[in-house]
Amino acid sequence: MNGIGIDIGGTNTKIIVVDGRGRLLHEERFRTLPADGYRDFISRLAACVKRLKKEWSPVSIGIGAAGDMDPEKGILRFSPNLRWPSVPISGPLKKLTGLPCAIENDANMAAWGAYEMELKRKYPNVLTVTLGTGIGGGLIVNGALYHGATGSAGEIGHNKIEPGGAPCSCGARGCMEAYCGNYAIIREAKKIIKNVPAFVKKYAPAGHTELDPLCLTRAADGGHRGALKVWHDMGEKLGRGLADMILLFNPDCVLFTGGVSGAARHFMGPMKKVFAAQQIARPFGAVKFAVARNADAGVYGAALLGMELARRR
Amino acid sequence: MNGIGIDIGGTNTKIIVVDGRGRLLHEERFRTLPADGYRDFISRLAACVKRLKKEWSPVSIGIGAAGDMDPEKGILRFSPNLRWPSVPISGPLKKLTGLPCAIENDANMAAWGAYEMELKRKYPNVLTVTLGTGIGGGLIVNGALYHGATGSAGEIGHNKIEPGGAPCSCGARGCMEAYCGNYAIIREAKKIIKNVPAFVKKYAPAGHTELDPLCLTRAADGGHRGALKVWHDMGEKLGRGLADMILLFNPDCVLFTGGVSGAARHFMGPMKKVFAAQQIARPFGAVKFAVARNADAGVYGAALLGMELARRR
Repeated sequence: MNGIGIDIGGTNTKIIVVDGRGRLLHEERFRTLPADGYRDFISRLAACVKRLKKEWSPVSIGIGAAGDMDPEKGILRFSPNLRWPSVPISGPLKKLTGLPCAIENDANMAAWGAYEMELKRKYPNVLTVTLGTGIGGGLIVNGALYHGATGSAGEIGHNKIEPGGAPCSCGARGCMEAYCGNYAIIREAKKIIKNVPAFVKKYAPAGHTELDPLCLTRAADGGHRGALKVWHDMGEKLGRGLADMILLFNPDCVLFTGGVSGAARHFMGPMKKVFAAQQIARPFGAVKFAVARNADAGVYGAALLGMELARRR
Repeated sequence: MNGIGIDIGGTNTKIIVVDGRGRLLHEERFRTLPADGYRDFISRLAACVKRLKKEWSPVSIGIGAAGDMDPEKGILRFSPNLRWPSVPISGPLKKLTGLPCAIENDANMAAWGAYEMELKRKYPNVLTVTLGTGIGGGLIVNGALYHGATGSAGEIGHNKIEPGGAPCSCGARGCMEAYCGNYAIIREAKKIIKNVPAFVKKYAPAGHTELDPLCLTRAADGGHRGALKVWHDMGEKLGRGLADMILLFNPDCVLFTGGVSGAARHFMGPMKKVFAAQQIARPFGAVKFAVARNADAGVYGAALLGMELARRR
């Protein structure tokens, strides 16, 4: 059984075909060109899907995009990258291609992709934590993606860990993202590391010229005290934020995805220390932790969730 | 269809028989006498159930108690009120009475009782918030009680809203309960109300001689500024704690139960003001709020959940 996965970005739209185990069969991309309008985009997308349908006989389509979705009605209500009015996606695509089409926001698609491909559905109840520029997440409940009343379940970056604290990308203060997001990690590193250009020159991988999480990870690997402190502080804040969620949701497993999760070996220790100090100990004693190897599971998750829903119908 | 509901307390054990709609058919209680040991208790409980079985033909038993349960194995792992070692409950009771027996902690039973009896299962995804001496809660996901990896899902009282803040009953600092639990409300009231004896004399209902939430509710009803400020501050703190949970869980409805929920008309306004100021607005725009009329749904929930699980088997 094959399925099509689509990730609609503000610049490019990525399309893949995978088999039932998530193995990549085909991959392509085209320019999204949101300014040309929604109708134009849907007709180009449908043409591409029809061509792939002939070659790969997929049973379903799954679509992820950043923004606000109605998975039940198949509507993209708002996307910050596309700026169309609320538009139907699943209905028109099904009409044009004959394939059932699941949509979810990209954080939920990434959650499902990581759940199937990294955890092999091993645990029934999982909180996924996507660490990148922003912090997102998703909930798997009883082995199924849970999207909540308005499709935004797992919006974990904006819980408050320091009332009135550091400014967050969302406009509020003191959110977990404001301490553990990419930009916050760099902000803290610039306070701690005295000679940033020399630090970047020494630790950045080829082609990187700015202080970024990868550079900080490599420095921490080499024992750099400042970099280790950055990850220590980030892990402690992450632990405080996630502790509240573990108390509420009592998951079997917390699964980290996203680019910054590559530094897990440096932030997991301080994070677990926060959990070990919790008064209500059992949920923290029981929860497992995992780090996704494929940090970009979104478009795979779209393909796999589309197949999952087609199977269940 | 009838079912038996049991609430094991440290002092008394309450037993009810209800019909499929939660209407009370019979009610009794006996002394728990935990110091006489677990075997003695189970044999007395089984004798009572066997007697009720003859009269009412129940299809199931549901048991709630404060503490740490394993609902799948039917084991009471630890109860602060009983202090037995980890003991099996469902297995022995089924053997002695012939009835299937569901167990859950009392917060989960209260959540299910309120969900069936107050909301009539109207919404698929509900967060229940029990406001009393402590603050507990429960999660209903896709119309079923969700208990998480270790049966403690919905442990909402101990999320941190003020790092290093007020001391909580759990031993930590800054928990939501440390601002919104019964004891915290009284602590704050004593700071604000100058002449406490006169206040109690004026506002306490007959038989109450201490400052308590009911007294503060009556004073607020009468327009007492100090009492209104107590509820205002409590509502603001509650809003901050629940905001994080609404972001994670994205529920259709938040349902308040427990004795302190009787003051909802005073704390809901300030709470909703916190929600209205959230940057990520949609989950807060969509969520409904409800207050349970029957504040003590625990033993009803036990009876109803027992029947629900017996039906699903």
